Amino acid sequence: MTESVDATRPDATGDPIVWDRVFRPRSVAVLGATGRPDSPMGRPLRWLAERGFDGAIWPVNPKYDELAGLPCYPSLSALPGPVDLVLAMAPATQAPGAVRDAGAAGAAAVIVFASGFAEVGPDGAALQRELVRAGRESGVRVLGPNCQGVLYTPGRLFATFTAAAERPLEGSSGIAYVGQSGAVGGSVLDIAAAQGLDLTAWVSTGNQADVDITEIGRYLVRESEVSVLAVYLESIQDGAAYERLAVEAARAGTALVVLRSGRSDAGRRAAVSHTGAMLGDGTAFRLVSVRNGVVLVDDVEELLAAATALRGQPRPAGRRVAAVTTSGGAGILAADRCAGHDLTLPELAPETREKLARIVPAFGALANPVDVTAQLFIQEGRAFGDVCSIVCADPSVDALMVLLTMVVGDEGVELAEDLAGAMAGSDVPCSVVWLAGPDRTTAARDVLRAAGIPVFSSIAVAAKVAAELVPEPVAPGPTTVSPPASPPVSSAASSVPDGWGLLEEIGVRTPRAMPVQTSDEAVHAARELAGQDGSVVLKAVAPGVEHKTEAGGVRLGVPVDRAAEVVDQLAAGVPGLESVLVQEAVRPGLELLVGVAGGHDGWPPVLTVGLGGTATEVHRDVATALAPISPDDARALLYRLRSWPLLAGHRGTPPRDVDGVVDVLVRLGAAVAERTDIAELEINPLIVGPAGDGAVAVDVLVTLTA
Amino acid sequence: MTESVDATRPDATGDPIVWDRVFRPRSVAVLGATGRPDSPMGRPLRWLAERGFDGAIWPVNPKYDELAGLPCYPSLSALPGPVDLVLAMAPATQAPGAVRDAGAAGAAAVIVFASGFAEVGPDGAALQRELVRAGRESGVRVLGPNCQGVLYTPGRLFATFTAAAERPLEGSSGIAYVGQSGAVGGSVLDIAAAQGLDLTAWVSTGNQADVDITEIGRYLVRESEVSVLAVYLESIQDGAAYERLAVEAARAGTALVVLRSGRSDAGRRAAVSHTGAMLGDGTAFRLVSVRNGVVLVDDVEELLAAATALRGQPRPAGRRVAAVTTSGGAGILAADRCAGHDLTLPELAPETREKLARIVPAFGALANPVDVTAQLFIQEGRAFGDVCSIVCADPSVDALMVLLTMVVGDEGVELAEDLAGAMAGSDVPCSVVWLAGPDRTTAARDVLRAAGIPVFSSIAVAAKVAAELVPEPVAPGPTTVSPPASPPVSSAASSVPDGWGLLEEIGVRTPRAMPVQTSDEAVHAARELAGQDGSVVLKAVAPGVEHKTEAGGVRLGVPVDRAAEVVDQLAAGVPGLESVLVQEAVRPGLELLVGVAGGHDGWPPVLTVGLGGTATEVHRDVATALAPISPDDARALLYRLRSWPLLAGHRGTPPRDVDGVVDVLVRLGAAVAERTDIAELEINPLIVGPAGDGAVAVDVLVTLTA
Repeated sequence: MTESVDATRPDATGDPIVWDRVFRPRSVAVLGATGRPDSPMGRPLRWLAERGFDGAIWPVNPKYDELAGLPCYPSLSALPGPVDLVLAMAPATQAPGAVRDAGAAGAAAVIVFASGFAEVGPDGAALQRELVRAGRESGVRVLGPNCQGVLYTPGRLFATFTAAAERPLEGSSGIAYVGQSGAVGGSVLDIAAAQGLDLTAWVSTGNQADVDITEIGRYLVRESEVSVLAVYLESIQDGAAYERLAVEAARAGTALVVLRSGRSDAGRRAAVSHTGAMLGDGTAFRLVSVRNGVVLVDDVEELLAAATALRGQPRPAGRRVAAVTTSGGAGILAADRCAGHDLTLPELAPETREKLARIVPAFGALANPVDVTAQLFIQEGRAFGDVCSIVCADPSVDALMVLLTMVVGDEGVELAEDLAGAMAGSDVPCSVVWLAGPDRTTAARDVLRAAGIPVFSSIAVAAKVAAELVPEPVAPGPTTVSPPASPPVSSAASSVPDGWGLLEEIGVRTPRAMPVQTSDEAVHAARELAGQDGSVVLKAVAPGVEHKTEAGGVRLGVPVDRAAEVVDQLAAGVPGLESVLVQEAVRPGLELLVGVAGGHDGWPPVLTVGLGGTATEVHRDVATALAPISPDDARALLYRLRSWPLLAGHRGTPPRDVDGVVDVLVRLGAAVAERTDIAELEINPLIVGPAGDGAVAVDVLVTLTA
Repeated sequence: MTESVDATRPDATGDPIVWDRVFRPRSVAVLGATGRPDSPMGRPLRWLAERGFDGAIWPVNPKYDELAGLPCYPSLSALPGPVDLVLAMAPATQAPGAVRDAGAAGAAAVIVFASGFAEVGPDGAALQRELVRAGRESGVRVLGPNCQGVLYTPGRLFATFTAAAERPLEGSSGIAYVGQSGAVGGSVLDIAAAQGLDLTAWVSTGNQADVDITEIGRYLVRESEVSVLAVYLESIQDGAAYERLAVEAARAGTALVVLRSGRSDAGRRAAVSHTGAMLGDGTAFRLVSVRNGVVLVDDVEELLAAATALRGQPRPAGRRVAAVTTSGGAGILAADRCAGHDLTLPELAPETREKLARIVPAFGALANPVDVTAQLFIQEGRAFGDVCSIVCADPSVDALMVLLTMVVGDEGVELAEDLAGAMAGSDVPCSVVWLAGPDRTTAARDVLRAAGIPVFSSIAVAAKVAAELVPEPVAPGPTTVSPPASPPVSSAASSVPDGWGLLEEIGVRTPRAMPVQTSDEAVHAARELAGQDGSVVLKAVAPGVEHKTEAGGVRLGVPVDRAAEVVDQLAAGVPGLESVLVQEAVRPGLELLVGVAGGHDGWPPVLTVGLGGTATEVHRDVATALAPISPDDARALLYRLRSWPLLAGHRGTPPRDVDGVVDVLVRLGAAVAERTDIAELEINPLIVGPAGDGAVAVDVLVTLTA
């Protein structure tokens, strides 16, 4: 794994001593503390003073002798003791000075709340650079600017002005949040608190001039109070830092759930206008997340639901869901929505059905979904929990989805307690969809969430989150793969322009070919290269002619005696023709596209394979993986293509040379991982012959890094 | 449009007089009224008596003289006046007798709540048939059995025992619900009420032995109190009845929103175990819905959200969404989610941006999403509504999505009132996503919903519903199309077996072909049919050999002098060979699949076109439409294929004969609409030559109805 450490940062390794002094400070100075305690900027001092923060609190403002019932100091240099954390409430222009003063006072970090930096234009960007310089020169870490600060409930640290913290926030759910956006973060904090899940830690990193999400995240995943880290991601400085966070979270046993924005074109445009930054490579991001077991979600609601599930429950082992419902209709809807996310509802084992038959009323259903009917509640006390325990004990069940309709009020609370008890310690995770007015089920929902069971008001969302929680089947941890030991396949071609030479070095078979400049040379080459049918392929080589077929620059099946004439036609028809490539004709086969994109900004290289030829964009059938790749993983990648049947042999067509394709994928993956000069390499088509006949790259496009 | 009226039903036309007597009865008899007012079966009488029902209420039970403070009668024959509606609270076995008694007493309808009918097995099914017979013979309509009844709030009619009606339900939102499931219905009723939207009408049809959803629906869409009908659909008796409901809803100006379950394989299995019934043809259902402007949704939450939107707002004219947000992050997420549902966020006009610049703070964004930032609320009073009005006045905006973060409490209510005022009378519909704890935004959400603005807690769900509300571009109302006037294209073939003759009648071009029995005949035929290259195609004709290519029963490019030998091979290799078809060789072209499925159960016939050949299942690129189809609609159908570029001419390949394909689609559509004997007809491949060369059906499979 490549690491690109930003040398301009004094500490990009997540120094726990610094961050202990931020999250558990012995003393906090509020620089520029205001006399208006009810204004947003008055909140941090008020909350620190009123909510039991157990360190020293030092308001700093020369205009006051006392604020919030505490002595107020004229400057940071006048503080009565060493300071750990400084909250800078001052306007943007004063922030660099504040950072230097904080450094002089021995602070570990300064939180700069003010906006008016890089997000407002070039002048602000210059001011932001000055801020970073001030931090570096005075040995102080800077959080922000344009951020909403830090909250850490176990230490009663409220170093934030988010309106969401107006709630008392006395609990500690084990869920931590970190994201650039204070607004989205405020929503997460508030919605979680409304669900009875006060966040343990909460950080808005704002412009990330110095400290970014990954550095904060790496501290939080190691915190014993934190069991789940929920991340909202708009931009990342480098991919290696992100992977380091993911690896350390996995190592610490802390679940990592990431909501990434700016994924669509429209989203990226919006992101650029919002933060001026954007996430680099979407595919590499997704693949790196998957290989490190990160849970990826699509919405704030899903972020919280997934975090709730992962507080107290394992991830499901697979995609097999059992539904237990009080309403047949809700069960059918759940089956539909699960199918839409590739979750299956397996049949339950006969023993399971026998056990259920003793509890479920006669007209209920024992299939999956299990319809217990509303009668169950009239009849018995704890029967519902028993039904769920029996279902979860079935070996074909990876996850339980409970669908409740009008079980409300006290009856609902009893059911929630029953279910929470039945699920305690179960290794089959559970989620609940409660289709009733939230006001009649508030207490019951709180009981479930406190037990780590996510509660949804929507079957569709529950099914989506259930699918997001299923780990994708990948080898854990970064893959290390050796390149194939065999020497490159040798092809008889003489010198070939650009990509061809690279393919030969890598060991990918190419057609024999000769570049020619004149009609005479063409005839000579055609005679040498013509196959059984007496024909060759002629290709125009000209700058900018990347889609040769479209430009009319490729002539197939040219008989030897017409080679001269066709070269003349190409010379007349293709502007800027540099030469013509005479190639042996490759027998028709299945046309694939194979490509690699080099690693950059700390993201690993990515390998792509799909249905190729001229209809590539029409079929849009591609699969991707991180490079390098092992032969087994390459084969698994091919299975994921919709076109796999065309490779395996389909409706009378012979099986294709899958081993040959695997060999090309492994070689390209190894090459792009070893060589840093390959920005992009695309073979299209790679013609795959019948099994045993190998695969031949018939056209290639290479972009090298400057 | 075909109509199949079930003659066993006394009134399948939705007689408004009958239904007036059910929804606005002058008198209701509660047969078998219970002395336990708090039991579920005690609810209807209690609610009728306590909640201001303005007709006569007659409890009937020989055991009591008085119930719920009202005189109780020993039998229906002892009632003091004519009865409109009878609620039968008795057990299943007494229901047929109750229905006959109700008929004798002159009732219009009986609601049978009891379960124990078709849903429990053969005995129950027999009892259900007896119930239907009793209704028919005594001229009484039967609602149920196994249903939860009827609620109509304008008349204070609570003829139901659903626990969801425990709320007072004093409002009338204009939203009506009808569905089989009382449990799902109860959820809809309760969740709507919790949102301040008391349903105007609510019906659970249960087993639908006599009266089904479409009949109730047709009455409700014509009710002046009802502006939206929300339907939860598990099964439908016939397609024509469903289309009639949709047509009448459109005619009455009542929006129709349908949540259909049992769409996936898993859902269908669950549905069969639940109700024993299932929806017939999913494709025809979807297409009939689309052509009649029905809004289709996927979840209970979406059903209510769409109904809320359609109470007071028009449907959006197109897919262009403007997002206005208090948080840049939420805006990016919205852009992402909209893109996922093919909604676009267009750039706003320069004039719009100029107007916005006067209101939105300097560091907000004037692009789309418009980020007003939290500053807007600190600065001004009604500015947010103004921003939304300006954005909605932009001609490129079809719908507005407002994303709010921590605007809560009184500030939230003010904003909601401001926004509701700005949107009143706007022809651009609006939805709101409120990312804050529901407890801090309850009143504000109620303000918005009362104004017909749906409020979501999830960006993902809001984007999905926004997309569901966009009408699909189809010709309004049933299409009437004349078959092409030109005579069928004549082909020189002599007699050909099964499908070939039908294709010729329809006027679809087929290869010249001759069926042969012997090697000698084959040679003779091959000489006659051989093309320029001297070869023909030989095809085995054998029962059960439907996928001929896979079975080795198709031989391409057979030279005339090898025809005899190949016939012998087929005779030896294909079990049950009946004959061999000698066909002229068709020049290679683009291979499509074209099929029709005949209408059945009142559903119209469906036309399918897609990428064909042996890789049909691999590419899964098909589009469907109702038949018959006009040439313009057929062309539009082809545009919807992912493979359209292959037809239009793509990367150097010539344009294909689109007119030829359109002609085939129009002819097949006309044929399947006219002839009732075609159950299925599939041409695969239809080989489409270059423009002007037409399209030839090279293989065909026909299933005729018995």
